[in-house]
Amino acid sequence: MNSPFPFSALCSVLWCFCAYAGGVLDVSRFGAFPDDGKDDTLAVRAAVTQAKKQGARKLVFPKGRYDFYPDMAFERYQFVSNNAEGLKRIAFPLDGMTRFEIDGQGSDFLFHGFLSPFTIDNSQDIALRNFTVDYARTFHSEGKILCVTNTHADIEIPEDYPYSVENGLLKFHDGKPRPARTLYPVSLILEFDPVKRETAYQARDYGVGLDIRAEDLGGRRVRLLREKLKGTPGNIFVFGPHLRHVCAVTVTDSSRVTIEDVTLYHCGGMGVIGQRSRDLFVRRVRVTPPPNKNRTVSITADATHFVNCGGQVVLEDCLFELQIDDATNVHGIYVRIAKCVAPAIADVQLAHPAQHGFDFIKKGQKLELVKGPALTTYAYPVVKQVERLNKEYTRLTFKEPLPDTVAVGDALAAIDAYAALTIRGCTIRGNRARGILLNSRGPTVVEGNTFHTAGTAILFEGDARLWYEQAGVSDCVIRNNLFDSCNYGVWGTALIEVRAGIDPAFRAGSRYNKNIRITDNTIRYFHPGMLRMYCVQGLTFSGNKLEKTDAYPQWNPKVPRFETPDCDDVRIEE
Amino acid sequence: MNSPFPFSALCSVLWCFCAYAGGVLDVSRFGAFPDDGKDDTLAVRAAVTQAKKQGARKLVFPKGRYDFYPDMAFERYQFVSNNAEGLKRIAFPLDGMTRFEIDGQGSDFLFHGFLSPFTIDNSQDIALRNFTVDYARTFHSEGKILCVTNTHADIEIPEDYPYSVENGLLKFHDGKPRPARTLYPVSLILEFDPVKRETAYQARDYGVGLDIRAEDLGGRRVRLLREKLKGTPGNIFVFGPHLRHVCAVTVTDSSRVTIEDVTLYHCGGMGVIGQRSRDLFVRRVRVTPPPNKNRTVSITADATHFVNCGGQVVLEDCLFELQIDDATNVHGIYVRIAKCVAPAIADVQLAHPAQHGFDFIKKGQKLELVKGPALTTYAYPVVKQVERLNKEYTRLTFKEPLPDTVAVGDALAAIDAYAALTIRGCTIRGNRARGILLNSRGPTVVEGNTFHTAGTAILFEGDARLWYEQAGVSDCVIRNNLFDSCNYGVWGTALIEVRAGIDPAFRAGSRYNKNIRITDNTIRYFHPGMLRMYCVQGLTFSGNKLEKTDAYPQWNPKVPRFETPDCDDVRIEE
Repeated sequence: MNSPFPFSALCSVLWCFCAYAGGVLDVSRFGAFPDDGKDDTLAVRAAVTQAKKQGARKLVFPKGRYDFYPDMAFERYQFVSNNAEGLKRIAFPLDGMTRFEIDGQGSDFLFHGFLSPFTIDNSQDIALRNFTVDYARTFHSEGKILCVTNTHADIEIPEDYPYSVENGLLKFHDGKPRPARTLYPVSLILEFDPVKRETAYQARDYGVGLDIRAEDLGGRRVRLLREKLKGTPGNIFVFGPHLRHVCAVTVTDSSRVTIEDVTLYHCGGMGVIGQRSRDLFVRRVRVTPPPNKNRTVSITADATHFVNCGGQVVLEDCLFELQIDDATNVHGIYVRIAKCVAPAIADVQLAHPAQHGFDFIKKGQKLELVKGPALTTYAYPVVKQVERLNKEYTRLTFKEPLPDTVAVGDALAAIDAYAALTIRGCTIRGNRARGILLNSRGPTVVEGNTFHTAGTAILFEGDARLWYEQAGVSDCVIRNNLFDSCNYGVWGTALIEVRAGIDPAFRAGSRYNKNIRITDNTIRYFHPGMLRMYCVQGLTFSGNKLEKTDAYPQWNPKVPRFETPDCDDVRIEE
Repeated sequence: MNSPFPFSALCSVLWCFCAYAGGVLDVSRFGAFPDDGKDDTLAVRAAVTQAKKQGARKLVFPKGRYDFYPDMAFERYQFVSNNAEGLKRIAFPLDGMTRFEIDGQGSDFLFHGFLSPFTIDNSQDIALRNFTVDYARTFHSEGKILCVTNTHADIEIPEDYPYSVENGLLKFHDGKPRPARTLYPVSLILEFDPVKRETAYQARDYGVGLDIRAEDLGGRRVRLLREKLKGTPGNIFVFGPHLRHVCAVTVTDSSRVTIEDVTLYHCGGMGVIGQRSRDLFVRRVRVTPPPNKNRTVSITADATHFVNCGGQVVLEDCLFELQIDDATNVHGIYVRIAKCVAPAIADVQLAHPAQHGFDFIKKGQKLELVKGPALTTYAYPVVKQVERLNKEYTRLTFKEPLPDTVAVGDALAAIDAYAALTIRGCTIRGNRARGILLNSRGPTVVEGNTFHTAGTAILFEGDARLWYEQAGVSDCVIRNNLFDSCNYGVWGTALIEVRAGIDPAFRAGSRYNKNIRITDNTIRYFHPGMLRMYCVQGLTFSGNKLEKTDAYPQWNPKVPRFETPDCDDVRIEE
């Protein structure tokens, strides 16, 4: 070419103009095109790298379907609280970013294999908007119940869930030939009602280890060789995955994160997990199975979950349905005193394996020291030195000796950040287990939501013996919600419960939860249990409209309506 | 106390004197005492930290037994070539050290659980001396064969190998009650002859996945429900572990490392694995099962193994017996060209999972580019830029475009460091598979050793299609060795073999190995195959004394004594 302004330079200018105008990057400029079925992972990596380099504000996706494979994805060893740790592949690694938005513009993001969609790490002012998340092969599997006897159950497994029966064991996989085949191990069986779109009435979890003895009957029919299974023909056995490897959105050590207008059809862990972060806003997020597929459940663990988070945590106008665990849980972490090495030195343990690697204790930090069985705080030691031994054990040196009464099994937790929690306008229904677990000591407001939960709709938990979750609300309002025929499942005996791990011998002296006001709710109920609470200081139940229904058979009509032992300042007005 | 020189100060002075005299630290000063059964892991961590701080030359152990548990051990995610990657606990983490020695003074180091004994990382002038390594619970398991039929085999399992039959499956574990129980998964069955102390005559590996169907017969007797097993009553079925998680000594990115007078009774991976290191000396190292225990085999993988190592690699006066894989293998790594992105840009893959994370390519490095099926080098591209995508894929930019003939499936390897390998005075016997794999392009001398190997005694390998191991000797002397009735097993058809992965269509034009001289050896043989070599330039077999024995029945008397197609300059003198 003879032009003094070569064609390639012109292209560059145009490209810069299109791609960078207003600090907005278009993913198609990096090679990701909708609906072409090609792996868009490297294009996103390149786009995110470029966004960091130039400080772009936004990455947009022309509407369509995008595919993401793990092969070329970013990799990091992640400890994700209440999920499985591991060396993970991540499609959207947003790390060390400030003021950045992903706008899917209504696109569908389809993930393949063990690939985590989003990680937001050490970042501020991040937004995810306007897309759906689904997987080509789900982490759980499903089978339609054909018949159930005392010795076995026959199911029919849709083609969406490749499997084989090998060595007399049912194995789910991705359908590829060996050795490329990836297994999708399961360890739970739970019955769902596909018509009512919820866990089957009074269905319970069957733990199956990793070995499900089975016989292949041909024609995608399999006989599960397990005695005393219960199930109704036509219902669905859901096989829950063994571990929670693949969360949809992991937010770690970040602040001001917004997730809006996002639909999570599926992932292999929690939907949104926030840890050691603050100011998290989840609005119009829909956790639901995709339409028009042989899929009964949505995601395979809690819809959302927040650990050691501060500032505001807001769930607004969300739908959380048919996931295989609770809608949310907002709590801290206790470390267990494993050994008193010296008066001012203790080895502490992250005692639950799903909390391994959750380093939250810093030099100079003031902690609370609680009696393990009572959950009563008896000192506020200040940390002088932190020596991480490994993901499980840390050696702490304190500024002053610990009290003489300290004992192995007592616990320490952070007290410097509690989330102000708002749950408003959400619908929670059909999922396994409970609705919401309120365990933050910040102001907690639950209003205008609809609950149709298999277990307890609202639970106050916390313990230093099993889950090691710090809890104990101090200011909690539950108002103007609709509770619609909850407690049709096995996870709880009343609509609203305390199940904190406080040894009964210590309950008279413990007031772990404070100031709970349950007012002006509409409660449609077939099950009589309303409140089952203990160790609460200040409990009001008033202005609520109770409407009896016969939505389900009574499974325990003798459950008292209100149980409030070891509580003070209780006001219950029916 | 009224003394102007307080007692505590006196203690400090004495302590410093004892502990630090001559830069020598005594581990007992850090709380590790022999024979007390307590966990010495933290004491060793403290001693190593102190040694780094003060530049101590030596850590000594008063003679006795020391116990090491994983609980409080150092932790690191390790990629160990030809072994399993993972987040590992390490008892002796020697990282970033110079001139340091561990002297066990004849002590026994007993490890518990999944704990790696030694890692030498990024260090120089390190020595390990005078100790034994064993495990309270081995990573493999064993059972005495009682009877074998066409449909099953009955075995009796010694108490050293806790197990249970659950869901119709045989599971080995550590004998603890649940949930503290740790599983020891196995995936291989191989028969050993405990009287001859070797793999049973013509025994072959049975891959069993992770699921061994079985029936508990009581009295520690178990029926293996597998058809067509072969085995002789009185012999031992060894159950090999599923993965190689726990090597005894891992040497990474280090130089001048000496391991002397060390006995490895057991570990759950390779005995000594060196990667990206130089000048490694292994002397009087004994890999052997412990005496006076119900233990037939020693360690569960190769006795030693060296990958991309340079300088000298010396194995001298060692005993390598009854381990579950070869005595050594010294080779490089090929990365596979996975995608040609642009003329000077390629995505390369560490194609074998056991090589994931083996980052060896640096900016500015000259590599060899080889044709995958032929293993012929056709270019020497220089690396301009390295972008690690994840443990498997790396994007390489070269200074010049790659040749037009480059194709997916071709491979790249380092050419800047080949070990000068000496194997002298060693005894190799009774182990599974082969003796030694000679795959270094540096001067290689094998002399004065005794071989009694089930498979091929000396193998020349290398391929860019399965193991992706760079090989091809250039100067190799094999002299004055005793080969004593080798080839009684299934791993090879001649005493000395080439099995390089060169497509037969390309062999006429490939001379992958060069200058192999096999002289003055004594070869006691019952099996006729001596040499089965191809693609060698310069092969001498002379001055060797051949003595026929009838140590074993003939399993293939028709094997030719010498096969040397596609070789040049061959001189064979019987």
